[in-house]
Amino acid sequence: MGKCLVTGGAGFIGSHVAQELIDSGRQAVILDDLSGGCADNVPAGAVFIKGSILDTALVGKIFAEHGIEYVFHLAAYAAEGLSHFIKKFNYENNLIGSANLINASVNYGVKCFVFTSSIAVYGENQLPMTEDLVPLPEDPYGIAKLAVEQDLKASKRMFGLDYVIFRPHNVYGERQNIGDRYRNVAGIFMNQILLGAPLTIFGDGTQTRAFTYIKDVSPLIAASAFMPDVYNEAFNIGADRHSTVNELARHVREAMSAPDHPVSHLPERKEVKHAFSSHDKLNKAFGYQPKYSLAQGIKAMAEWAKTSGSRAGGSFDNIEIRKNLPPSWAK
Amino acid sequence: MGKCLVTGGAGFIGSHVAQELIDSGRQAVILDDLSGGCADNVPAGAVFIKGSILDTALVGKIFAEHGIEYVFHLAAYAAEGLSHFIKKFNYENNLIGSANLINASVNYGVKCFVFTSSIAVYGENQLPMTEDLVPLPEDPYGIAKLAVEQDLKASKRMFGLDYVIFRPHNVYGERQNIGDRYRNVAGIFMNQILLGAPLTIFGDGTQTRAFTYIKDVSPLIAASAFMPDVYNEAFNIGADRHSTVNELARHVREAMSAPDHPVSHLPERKEVKHAFSSHDKLNKAFGYQPKYSLAQGIKAMAEWAKTSGSRAGGSFDNIEIRKNLPPSWAK
Repeated sequence: MGKCLVTGGAGFIGSHVAQELIDSGRQAVILDDLSGGCADNVPAGAVFIKGSILDTALVGKIFAEHGIEYVFHLAAYAAEGLSHFIKKFNYENNLIGSANLINASVNYGVKCFVFTSSIAVYGENQLPMTEDLVPLPEDPYGIAKLAVEQDLKASKRMFGLDYVIFRPHNVYGERQNIGDRYRNVAGIFMNQILLGAPLTIFGDGTQTRAFTYIKDVSPLIAASAFMPDVYNEAFNIGADRHSTVNELARHVREAMSAPDHPVSHLPERKEVKHAFSSHDKLNKAFGYQPKYSLAQGIKAMAEWAKTSGSRAGGSFDNIEIRKNLPPSWAK
Repeated sequence: MGKCLVTGGAGFIGSHVAQELIDSGRQAVILDDLSGGCADNVPAGAVFIKGSILDTALVGKIFAEHGIEYVFHLAAYAAEGLSHFIKKFNYENNLIGSANLINASVNYGVKCFVFTSSIAVYGENQLPMTEDLVPLPEDPYGIAKLAVEQDLKASKRMFGLDYVIFRPHNVYGERQNIGDRYRNVAGIFMNQILLGAPLTIFGDGTQTRAFTYIKDVSPLIAASAFMPDVYNEAFNIGADRHSTVNELARHVREAMSAPDHPVSHLPERKEVKHAFSSHDKLNKAFGYQPKYSLAQGIKAMAEWAKTSGSRAGGSFDNIEIRKNLPPSWAK
């Protein structure tokens, strides 16, 4: 059968991966502290354990009691831009938590550890980003993701733990936390429309990203653990076509039936201007091509957002550095 | 004057750096939790605060109360080989602790943050190791050191915090903790002779390292914070000549007046076979050439060790992974 642990399984990508596993007849145990996720997202048929990947004792207990054979590690605090201002919180959640899971995976003989890294490991690199580029992460989020990738390689060499690394980018879709003011521009835009607030764009909106619909991502992540041919490799995953943030705003406004909704431009942030990846390696290994256009994906997400409604925009309480914090992020 | 914080200042390299600072008329505040260091090592004239770099509140308090202008961050748990088996402990001490200090340095406007990294960031790379090589750390210790280096670069870009990074290798000398059974082969050998135990060598002893005497290292680390020309760069630092572990054993036995002391060869560990660095960049920037031969340095250290005596060999209590732990490290 294959007993699977999905960390962050009540979150956005994690809940879709858990759903894929259950749909293919596997057992899914979900560990999520609900800091970003939501219990409603847990798929029917999954075992849900509320708790943190930082709780070493709980992590060990789950591996022992549930006989975990495959790990899908999607729990993370994924606010890349904010990570400069919450370094410690970022490294604890994204590296120490991962080390807990890798330790348990070695100690309990896990067959494969699937890790969602990020294109943030590349930093401001040549384009398109390919898996053989030298990683040059430029923010604590990307630094933590790269450290976990390196630890997985070390754990393979030292302990024989097999892994698969995915580097997704700008994934959007149903069940995203649209109330998170620090991340995921598509969700932020939809929430702003639902709240009657102007769409906020950092800078002139000509920065480009390859926005990726969740259903072009979650099936491959779920399948990878059972494909030994892809073990011990890293794969970019996501859409091939890149769009400007302005184009995204247009699609969102149309899909939300608010084509004339106002836009407010904020001072630009220090961020990578353009980012898109090559997916040749993934396409070859998985025999897969992205299926969803930006218009299609945004339409599906907008239908869900209109039904589920706006979410309260909580702010992050424990900012560690306030210097140079974008004013819109300061309380 | 320049108020200096020296983390790990009761430890080996840290106490020498603190001494250099005091000798040049600066004020030194030492933060050390005495987990590896020893209060006896604190130089006369330094302010000593017993505590951990993981204590965020204490770190902030020290910066505020002492008006820290320069940080010399030498606190670390530096057992590279053991780090595979204590991943979480390693990342907490070596990365989270560093993030605490970087946060405080940004928040209190520190002028320069001097960080002792390690040649462990290079991994099994081409030789000699030069600063422009792509870092490929292969163990959690090297991974954490590289993450801190990357965080310092990000903190320079985002917050303007100036830094200097040193990558020393195999430093030995007076005040080393010779009771630490996991690290620093020269000290381990001396302690074994003092205890009447055979010298233990992993494998055949033909692995090479450029063993480096402390007094070829500490003056440059101490001076760097006051040399804006070397800011925001990484430097290899240490001896140019590399020797086998067998040669080191011979020097130690001679210096300890025990030329026929027995040697016991243990099964080889997974470790880098050869390691030596280029110091061209350092020599040029600092106008410095190493002064001490292996024989000279070992002789000075041995005189100290004979006087201060053996130290009890504590073992690390919280091993996280026991699989593939070298038998001599298991209790």
